[in-house]
This record gives sequence, structure tokens and C-alpha cells, in this order.
Amino acid sequence: MEIGLIGLGKMGHQLALNLLDKGHKVTGYDVMEPAREAALGAGIEVAESVEGLVSGFTERRVIWMMVPAGEPLETLLHELLGLLDEGDIMIDGGNSNYKDSIHHAELAAEKGLYFMDLGTSGGTSGAREGACMMIGGNEEAFRYIEPVIEEICVQDGYLYTGKSGSGHFLKMVHNGVEYGMMQAMGEGFELVEKSGFDYDNAEVAKVWNNGSVIRSWLMELAEQAFQKDGHLDEMTGMMQSSGEGQWTVETGLELKVPTPVISMSLMMRYRSLQEDTYAGKVVSALRNEFGGHGVIKK
Amino acid sequence: MEIGLIGLGKMGHQLALNLLDKGHKVTGYDVMEPAREAALGAGIEVAESVEGLVSGFTERRVIWMMVPAGEPLETLLHELLGLLDEGDIMIDGGNSNYKDSIHHAELAAEKGLYFMDLGTSGGTSGAREGACMMIGGNEEAFRYIEPVIEEICVQDGYLYTGKSGSGHFLKMVHNGVEYGMMQAMGEGFELVEKSGFDYDNAEVAKVWNNGSVIRSWLMELAEQAFQKDGHLDEMTGMMQSSGEGQWTVETGLELKVPTPVISMSLMMRYRSLQEDTYAGKVVSALRNEFGGHGVIKK
Repeated sequence: MEIGLIGLGKMGHQLALNLLDKGHKVTGYDVMEPAREAALGAGIEVAESVEGLVSGFTERRVIWMMVPAGEPLETLLHELLGLLDEGDIMIDGGNSNYKDSIHHAELAAEKGLYFMDLGTSGGTSGAREGACMMIGGNEEAFRYIEPVIEEICVQDGYLYTGKSGSGHFLKMVHNGVEYGMMQAMGEGFELVEKSGFDYDNAEVAKVWNNGSVIRSWLMELAEQAFQKDGHLDEMTGMMQSSGEGQWTVETGLELKVPTPVISMSLMMRYRSLQEDTYAGKVVSALRNEFGGHGVIKK
Repeated sequence: MEIGLIGLGKMGHQLALNLLDKGHKVTGYDVMEPAREAALGAGIEVAESVEGLVSGFTERRVIWMMVPAGEPLETLLHELLGLLDEGDIMIDGGNSNYKDSIHHAELAAEKGLYFMDLGTSGGTSGAREGACMMIGGNEEAFRYIEPVIEEICVQDGYLYTGKSGSGHFLKMVHNGVEYGMMQAMGEGFELVEKSGFDYDNAEVAKVWNNGSVIRSWLMELAEQAFQKDGHLDEMTGMMQSSGEGQWTVETGLELKVPTPVISMSLMMRYRSLQEDTYAGKVVSALRNEFGGHGVIKK
């Protein structure tokens, strides 16, 4: 199949190589020249513009977008809406908000195009060697791209989830669950680290990965990380996030579904990015006002 | 090796069969006659009393206890302290509090005996086919039982964790992490269930188990559960707990290590066992007092 892959970053580059391995005709593009050059160097054919990429097709177009959600995706999508022909398929393989994806599918449909919301899990190694994909959107369009999806995913590693938005919704919840699992592991290892016993964290993660109830890919990654740096001395505990945890919590609020653990995981990420808190100042000030308790001054 | 296995419940029965498979001379005992009879029926040799079990040994005794933590374990331990000979080894394979295990090891040492605190993970299938074990206590005693441990665990599925208490401490934290992971999954599937999209929960768990970041044994169990009952219509959401989550939270308090996600997971279990809450009555009463907001009357 001919596939245009736009966005040759960490995930897109690996996905392009995976698609090439399976014998597809992949043409890549990225707005950043270094990404285009890295792709060229890895043997990926690269177009000089979105227009160039689109004009190079000899069959029904499949444009796989691996660009950051929000503004970059919006800009690209609107450019593509003006360039594609009826029946062409756009795939948003990034972490877009599912509500945006519903809207994007409507915009595409107005022009006789298809917009598939495809959540990708498994990290960069998954993109390269076998990913996990959750795909929402028009079913005929899905069946057209399904043979490709099947090839680049692990066995049983993709699911057609139904109408537009359902793929990105499921990926969003997946990430929310991931936040909770990771925070639980983080708290557990902090207890292990500060227990007063003499544990080897890498050995702990290893034994937990062999036969225990909590064995998991994330615990395998913990094992890897502790093997490199036994007490994680080389890093801080500042935790970034990229939107999907927040959307999961927001979705819980909208649906009035309590998500205390996922929410708390998100709050702990925010807290980790604060050096000090204003809430803490207020609590300390109040303790001082009512009880004369000392405050720790700057 | 000659092994006395006391406690032939769900875990002990399976463990006895596993030990028998590996060629050991296992004698079982349980205070409950039905458990003894079930063991006999499964080909496990059974003693009629703890004293009878102890007197049947022809070599250094290894007494593996798979009885409930707390009173049952205390009673058994004190009986054994009066029956065993110097050098004999007791193994507490249950979910005892690690502080109790430190104390038990001291009591055993006073009599020249060894008490090993051995946390067992992997459920009943693990006990039968290959478990995960974390073992604290005297190192010489550990090396004596290690060949047996190695045989009944999965590959790389056991860890000698050092001094007394460290095995049960690690199992406790393992269970705390498990609480958080399970609650995160629970919240995620509640969002999936109430999303308005038409997901097949078993299919969702399945795709998440193949190539995704959150693939894990617990997600495989979720897949199994949803295959049997697609929307879990046959059960309630009342969640029991058996102490280790509580101890993990208590340990966090003692060490002043924040464990918000593990703590919240425990609170959600407690909440699930309440039909209504007194806290809720108070909040509703206050809303009524200050704002005239209606309360929902009995």
C-alpha cells in the first residue's frame, strides 16, 4: 500500500521503518528539516512538502499523521482537507483529544474524506517492532487499512472500536490507567527505598516480574531503569504529562464517574513540578494564626 | 526434603501438590477436618495433629505454615515453639504483618529455631504451578530451604531479601501496589463502560494486553473476567481487603512517605462496603443549613 507518513519524530520515524519492513511504499514528511534528514539517512523516502507528498500517490491515499495533538495537528489537517481527493483516508495516530477527533471526522466527511482516530500504545519500541492500536472511524475505511494495521501491530494488538472518537477515547483511558499504575508503583518503590531494609530495587522489580500478581510491562521497565541506576540518583522526581491524564479526569467529571486514583496520580504530577506550594503557605499561615505554630521562613 | 505443611486451604493445598510434584516428602495438617480430607483425597499425606506432624520427621524439620495471619498464626507458632528441636526451620508463607514476623523470628531465635517470613504472590495457580516468593530471615536457614524454593517458584521468581521482616515487608508493599493498579484499572473500565461508545470490555482488555504500555497479568485477569461476564452484571462492586493494603498505608504514615494513590485505593475499598455514608449525611445537612439545598430523605 502507498502510505504518506507525516511527522517523523520519535514515533513516526520508527513507524515508517516498521511499514517499510512490511513492504509498503512509504513517503515521509516532517516540518523540521533535521527529522526529514534523519529519515532520509535511515532509508525512508521523504517529500519536501505536504503538497509534494500528496501529489506522489498513484492510488487511494492513506495519510498517516504522527504529529503532536492540538495546533500542529489542526494545521496539518486543514492543509490536507484542501489537497486530498474523495475517498482518501487520513489517520491521526497521535494522542488527540477524542472530541477533536469527532469534529475532525465531521470536517473530513464534508469533503468525502475519511478521518480515523487511531490511538497508539507500546512506545517507540512498539512502533518499530509491533504496536498496540485502537482505531475509531468509518468501518469501510478501517477495512481498507486493516491489512497494514495488522502487519505493524503485535498479534491481537489492534481493535476497531467503532464510531469516530472511540479510538482516541480508549487510548485516553489507557493512559489514565497508566498514570494510576505508575504512581502506585512509584509509591511502592518509595516505601521500599525508605524501608530501613537493605533492598536492591532492581532485584525487587525483577522478582515482582516473575510470577507475582503485579508483573507487567511497566514493572519490566522499572527493572531496566533500576539496573541502570539502582537508586535513581541521577534524576529528579519531576513528572511531565502530555494531556491524556488530564482529559481522563475531565471525562470522569463530565460523566460523573469517580476517578480518585487516576485524578490523584495527575495531581501528584502537577505537585512534582512545583518547588513549593501556595496551598502550603496558606496552611502554615493558618496554623500560625490559630495556634502560634511556627512557620518555616524563606 | 521432608516438609510439614500446616494450613491446607486454597494456597496450602496447591503448594503441597506443587511440592509433591518436585519429589518432596510432604506431610500436611489443617485444623479443619474437611481441608485434611480434601488433601488426603488429592494424595497428600496428612497428620492428625501438629504434634503428630512434628514427630514424623527423620531429618531437620522444615515446617511451612500457610495459615491466616494474626491469631491462627500466633497459636500455631507458639505450639511449634514447644515442639521443635534446635535448628528446625519454620516458614510463615502467609500474609503476616512484617513487624509480627520480626517478633516471631526473635521468639524462634530464643529457642535456637529459625523463623522465615516468606511472602507468596501469584495466587492459587502460582502456588500450584510456579509462585513468586520474597524471603526474609536467617541466611543459613534460607540457603538450606533454597533448593526447594527454587523448584516451586517460576524462573527468577524468588528473592532472599535479608533480615527478618524484609520478606513480608516486601510482600506488603507488593500488595499495596496491587491495590493501586487494580483501582486504576477499575476506574478506567468504569469510564469505558459509561463512555457512550459501544465497547466490548473483553476486547478492550485483550487489545490492552497485546503490545500496550499497560499490559500486565492483572489486565489478563480482567480479560478473563470480562469474557465470562461482559459487563460484570452478575456481581457487585463491593471490595474486600485482607490487611496488607492497610499496613502499606500505615507504613507510609510511619515513614512519612506520601502514598496518596495506594491510600485512596484502600479508602475506595472501605467505601464500597458502605451502603450509605455518615460523612455524606453531614455534608448534605450542612448544604441544607447554609444554603437551603434539599437533602435526600430516607
